[in-house]
Amino acid sequence: MALNAYELTASPYKLVAFATALYDARMLKVFRTFLAVSLFVLAVAFNPSARADEGMWLFSAPPLEQLKEKYKFEPTQRWLEHLQKASVRFNSGGSGSFVSATGLCITNHHVGADALQKASSEQHNYLKDGFYAKTNTEEIKCADLELNVLISTEDVTARVSAAVKSGMTPDQASAARGNAIALIEKESKEKTGLRSDVVTLYQGGAYHLYRYKRYDDVRIVFAPEQQMAFYGGDPDNFEYPRFDLDICIFRVYENGQPGKVDDFLKWNSRGTSDGELTFVSGSPGKTDRQLTLDELAGTRDRFLPYLLRMFNRREVLELAYGARSFENARRARDDLFGDQNNRKRYNGYLAGLLDPETWLLLRAREQKLRDAVTNDPKLGSTGAAFDRIKNAQAEVAKNAPMYNYLEQERPISVGYRGPRAFSGNLFKYARLLTRVIDERAKPNGERIPEFRDSAKESLELELFSTEPVYDDYETLRLTDSLTDFASQFGANDPLVQKVLAGKSPHARAVNLVTGTKLKDVAVRKNLYTKGAAALQAAHDPMIDLARLVDTPARDARKIHDAQEEIKKQAYSEIAKARFTIEGTGSYPDATFTLRLSYGTVRGYEQDGKQVPAFTDFAGLYQRSAEHDNKPPFDLPQRWIDKKSNLNLSTKFNFVSDADIIGGNSGSPVVNKANEFVGIIFDGNIQSLVLDCIFTDKQARAVSVDSAAITEALRKVYDAGALADELEGVK
Amino acid sequence: MALNAYELTASPYKLVAFATALYDARMLKVFRTFLAVSLFVLAVAFNPSARADEGMWLFSAPPLEQLKEKYKFEPTQRWLEHLQKASVRFNSGGSGSFVSATGLCITNHHVGADALQKASSEQHNYLKDGFYAKTNTEEIKCADLELNVLISTEDVTARVSAAVKSGMTPDQASAARGNAIALIEKESKEKTGLRSDVVTLYQGGAYHLYRYKRYDDVRIVFAPEQQMAFYGGDPDNFEYPRFDLDICIFRVYENGQPGKVDDFLKWNSRGTSDGELTFVSGSPGKTDRQLTLDELAGTRDRFLPYLLRMFNRREVLELAYGARSFENARRARDDLFGDQNNRKRYNGYLAGLLDPETWLLLRAREQKLRDAVTNDPKLGSTGAAFDRIKNAQAEVAKNAPMYNYLEQERPISVGYRGPRAFSGNLFKYARLLTRVIDERAKPNGERIPEFRDSAKESLELELFSTEPVYDDYETLRLTDSLTDFASQFGANDPLVQKVLAGKSPHARAVNLVTGTKLKDVAVRKNLYTKGAAALQAAHDPMIDLARLVDTPARDARKIHDAQEEIKKQAYSEIAKARFTIEGTGSYPDATFTLRLSYGTVRGYEQDGKQVPAFTDFAGLYQRSAEHDNKPPFDLPQRWIDKKSNLNLSTKFNFVSDADIIGGNSGSPVVNKANEFVGIIFDGNIQSLVLDCIFTDKQARAVSVDSAAITEALRKVYDAGALADELEGVK
Repeated sequence: MALNAYELTASPYKLVAFATALYDARMLKVFRTFLAVSLFVLAVAFNPSARADEGMWLFSAPPLEQLKEKYKFEPTQRWLEHLQKASVRFNSGGSGSFVSATGLCITNHHVGADALQKASSEQHNYLKDGFYAKTNTEEIKCADLELNVLISTEDVTARVSAAVKSGMTPDQASAARGNAIALIEKESKEKTGLRSDVVTLYQGGAYHLYRYKRYDDVRIVFAPEQQMAFYGGDPDNFEYPRFDLDICIFRVYENGQPGKVDDFLKWNSRGTSDGELTFVSGSPGKTDRQLTLDELAGTRDRFLPYLLRMFNRREVLELAYGARSFENARRARDDLFGDQNNRKRYNGYLAGLLDPETWLLLRAREQKLRDAVTNDPKLGSTGAAFDRIKNAQAEVAKNAPMYNYLEQERPISVGYRGPRAFSGNLFKYARLLTRVIDERAKPNGERIPEFRDSAKESLELELFSTEPVYDDYETLRLTDSLTDFASQFGANDPLVQKVLAGKSPHARAVNLVTGTKLKDVAVRKNLYTKGAAALQAAHDPMIDLARLVDTPARDARKIHDAQEEIKKQAYSEIAKARFTIEGTGSYPDATFTLRLSYGTVRGYEQDGKQVPAFTDFAGLYQRSAEHDNKPPFDLPQRWIDKKSNLNLSTKFNFVSDADIIGGNSGSPVVNKANEFVGIIFDGNIQSLVLDCIFTDKQARAVSVDSAAITEALRKVYDAGALADELEGVK
Repeated sequence: MALNAYELTASPYKLVAFATALYDARMLKVFRTFLAVSLFVLAVAFNPSARADEGMWLFSAPPLEQLKEKYKFEPTQRWLEHLQKASVRFNSGGSGSFVSATGLCITNHHVGADALQKASSEQHNYLKDGFYAKTNTEEIKCADLELNVLISTEDVTARVSAAVKSGMTPDQASAARGNAIALIEKESKEKTGLRSDVVTLYQGGAYHLYRYKRYDDVRIVFAPEQQMAFYGGDPDNFEYPRFDLDICIFRVYENGQPGKVDDFLKWNSRGTSDGELTFVSGSPGKTDRQLTLDELAGTRDRFLPYLLRMFNRREVLELAYGARSFENARRARDDLFGDQNNRKRYNGYLAGLLDPETWLLLRAREQKLRDAVTNDPKLGSTGAAFDRIKNAQAEVAKNAPMYNYLEQERPISVGYRGPRAFSGNLFKYARLLTRVIDERAKPNGERIPEFRDSAKESLELELFSTEPVYDDYETLRLTDSLTDFASQFGANDPLVQKVLAGKSPHARAVNLVTGTKLKDVAVRKNLYTKGAAALQAAHDPMIDLARLVDTPARDARKIHDAQEEIKKQAYSEIAKARFTIEGTGSYPDATFTLRLSYGTVRGYEQDGKQVPAFTDFAGLYQRSAEHDNKPPFDLPQRWIDKKSNLNLSTKFNFVSDADIIGGNSGSPVVNKANEFVGIIFDGNIQSLVLDCIFTDKQARAVSVDSAAITEALRKVYDAGALADELEGVK
């Protein structure tokens, strides 16, 4: 379900015909065909006349030419602005959109899951059982959810780039750029009152200032049962056909009142139709399409195996804990869900990177650029940039264990949940407190980015979260991560010994979890307000641990950042060469900022059979029957009881060839009239390699049709008032 | 369930008072107490007057003195011989015993699981649903199960040691010893007709020749539902109190007729009682109690983390595969079960090794020996042996990736299932065929041990197994292991590229699995008979792969074996020093050969509460009710229906302080009258560190009481005839 689909490199050719096969003998035929036609594929791939619906485009540089040429469609500036301002970024890691004038905001259930988990208790398992607030007063305020709406953007490349003078060391360059960015953000925020982030595009080829309206009073309105949102579970995840009602509806509030929203999407309860042109507006998280081959080889041989070991470990831990009791299972539910999803997603990406056919395409793509660089006397020096990236990446890899275990906190989009040695919320709070107090003593421009003034409100939302903290689950995760840490560096490592303080991992975790006062929001607020002296005087074991590892953690970050700076400069040089060679009419790799994709609703061929674009409710009941209604193919009781109410031919899920990836989860799908006709929630298995390369042969984005949503709300969930609000019925 | 409990180092002192805590806050109190009393603990630990029921004793050197001193019990030679010959080793990795004159042999369900899995099909899931043959003709012959009964032993240390001359290189020494061993085994087998194995004891301090009667026509008579055998699933595994009917009953056949057994254990349906002295006779797999601290540090920092990554990876793979359909779940059932069990077991052992208190005890133990060595002028040179082991172990570690991925096949007892790069049965057959044909061309003494003449019948049983082979499951596992292999060495590694042959791991796996003919037993028999030319002419892709990796695999083995030889010589020297200092009245580390343990049936204190020695059927129904009869705490329907038949106060499981470990699973528990009163099936969580050190404070062996078995057979399973045979009722 964590939505997946993908974009292409910033090059004018496009790659068609692609197949990834995972653990599944039925894919054999595809592979054979594929090998046989690989030369043909390459020929097609480099034929610039066959335009696919490719690209995660900046709203400031939309694919007007492509839309006009292929679809004879010319969106107006107002059309674009309306869609932009109706689009909502969920900072917990997803996308969404406004769908009513009074602040209703729809996203995926799996994007809302974090908020549902945090709002639940032993008495109310909203994540599992669902929720519906019939009136505004019943809506539940989220613990720490922040939504962002993009208001305006500005190209600040010149100003940012000017800060870096030739001859600076990587450290100096990084500091100078950081300072310039901090100043731009601060000025913008002070001038506009809007959250202001400078976004790095093209791996350093451009810098844009993004201004967002923030919402941090967000309330839960509706969620189905997780079993209905994630019907088919892990086996059906990243597969198609699908039957998932993967939605969750929130409402934004301002000053304690439902938000008044001008730009919201008009709801179209007829949904979309086969062959229709649709648009997707959302925040894709991260793609690797402009990485060099050397860096991608590192992703394949080092980074993805590392991530997968981490997800395997967590999945086993959470399953074993959850099997002990219903309450344990509830506590670990969202974590388990996320880890299983990431495990399947990255297994798929790794399978793609281990396919020599993929590699052939990637190599051809890079070679074409390198040849063009070599042949252009003005760009000749750019060739060396590839080697600088390779060398820097080798240093990053060497430093990775220290960096990952002690420092790495982000991005959430690849499944990180804090430095790997110290799992759990309590260490997170201790880390944030020690860091914010140290950092705010420095000039704004010299701080670590997440502690700049421009990020203050978001930081406070996170630090003062009302998310419940469970001692046993904290202890479990901390025991496991301390064990992992000791295994990584050896129990005799001096830092491991300092961290464990003469105790076993379990005894140390118990000591930390039972000893800290940071569970209490008031304690965190008090320490945050009072500052350094209070922090020291607290003698809180978790804070003392965060302090103990702060220097080695910052040292690891410094090494990491210096190498990333070298890479940034080299990628910036390559990006400029690419602009020179290919023009600027392309789009940058995904950066969890707003992008526009487009595509046709259409099925695909697999194993010689046509997979239709749409499923319907009848198909859901059929799949359940085929599996004796046993998990993960069981239906919630409500869906069994209300079957006769439903129009079984209602469109349920559909696929299109729009170019999306993780982070696009919850993105609205709109038609040419800018009406809401569906919501993205997944990519199929064939799309999992598309982190690094685009194809539309079989790769598809998977959505819930709007028709299914209103039908289910009215006929299954007795949520007619909510359906009325969506449909604009007075 | 994979039984766990443990023995002590061959030193005269013993270690009391111990606590391992896993993921569980309730253990906090134990830890605190433990820290407070650690000095006291050390004092007790080194007090040789407090004799615990410790040791996995050789039947040729039983603990007569200890039994007489503490229990006033003096078993006769005939008593010992009877128990020895009634004890049965399951070569799939467990223990058992004869319990009728007509060949009934009882073991644990989890030991029989391998045979039950192999006998099952989509139509009959005997592993999950259980099985009962009311008549001999209904009994199901196992695919490849071999049972061994120890008939006699002989000390051949002098003859083996004489083969190694001073001045030999490790390779020469290893070859000379191998040759001597092969000759001894061959002579013995030719003379007696019995399976003859030379067993290395005390890590090389002694060599004994063991002669076994082999049974390879073994038939399944009875198994309960796995849910009853493993009631409580992973959460209750290695925990106590327990409610598991972990039994499985086979019958041995000779010449197509039920075997006639003279030495079988008389069944006592009253079971055992609190405080009673009991004996355990079985084949504990492996302990680490005589390893040096340096080697144990490697176990902690390298080997166990490696194993756990492997088990995590497999568990996730098998769960994901099994979730797709009932049939998938059935196919992966026994593998999943084994991997989950090993994961929990080795997590527990790692937790123990990461506890500084454990380390303190281990260090004191080694220091005592080292001091004694230093103080004895005749032993002074032995000090250097510790360093030789350290250096050799470092070389083993360096070579480990190649060795583990290409060669490592055994021991099954730590969860290996073939070389890690090539999972599945089909590669196993290809490897066995290429190896046996290469090896049998050599003189017997120069062969790899498993291909010596003395192992011929066992090899053929394995190679010609009728175990079903599922293409999809083979492809899944092979895809995953090839992916793992590529991640370990990098996709550009020359050997990885040769192995993948220009394909993705999945495509290569499909190509191998669909291309090979080795699924067919007749094909394997034919190739085995015809030999090298036929093998080459077969052009079978799996055989070609086995051939392709044979040289690097053998090279890795050679490096491994040379270092192990250095270690063996050093450990032999240390063992001799220990004999000099402490006498020869102790027992060697476990070697999956027959041992005698003894202990008192008794509960223990945990968190200030007494855990009673026994559970009963009433407790089973109570635990189920507490968890709403939901998995893994659900009862089979039969147990719900037959509840009123049962005497609910029947003793079900019990604990004793006997010294056991993995491999003891299924060992009979007998009373002083040599009657069968129970069957070992597990160790509790506090016993999981005891691989390396003994304690009887909380560590307990867990058994099914014989009373529960006959009660269940008669009242739940309508298996009166079987119960009659056990009880010797005419």
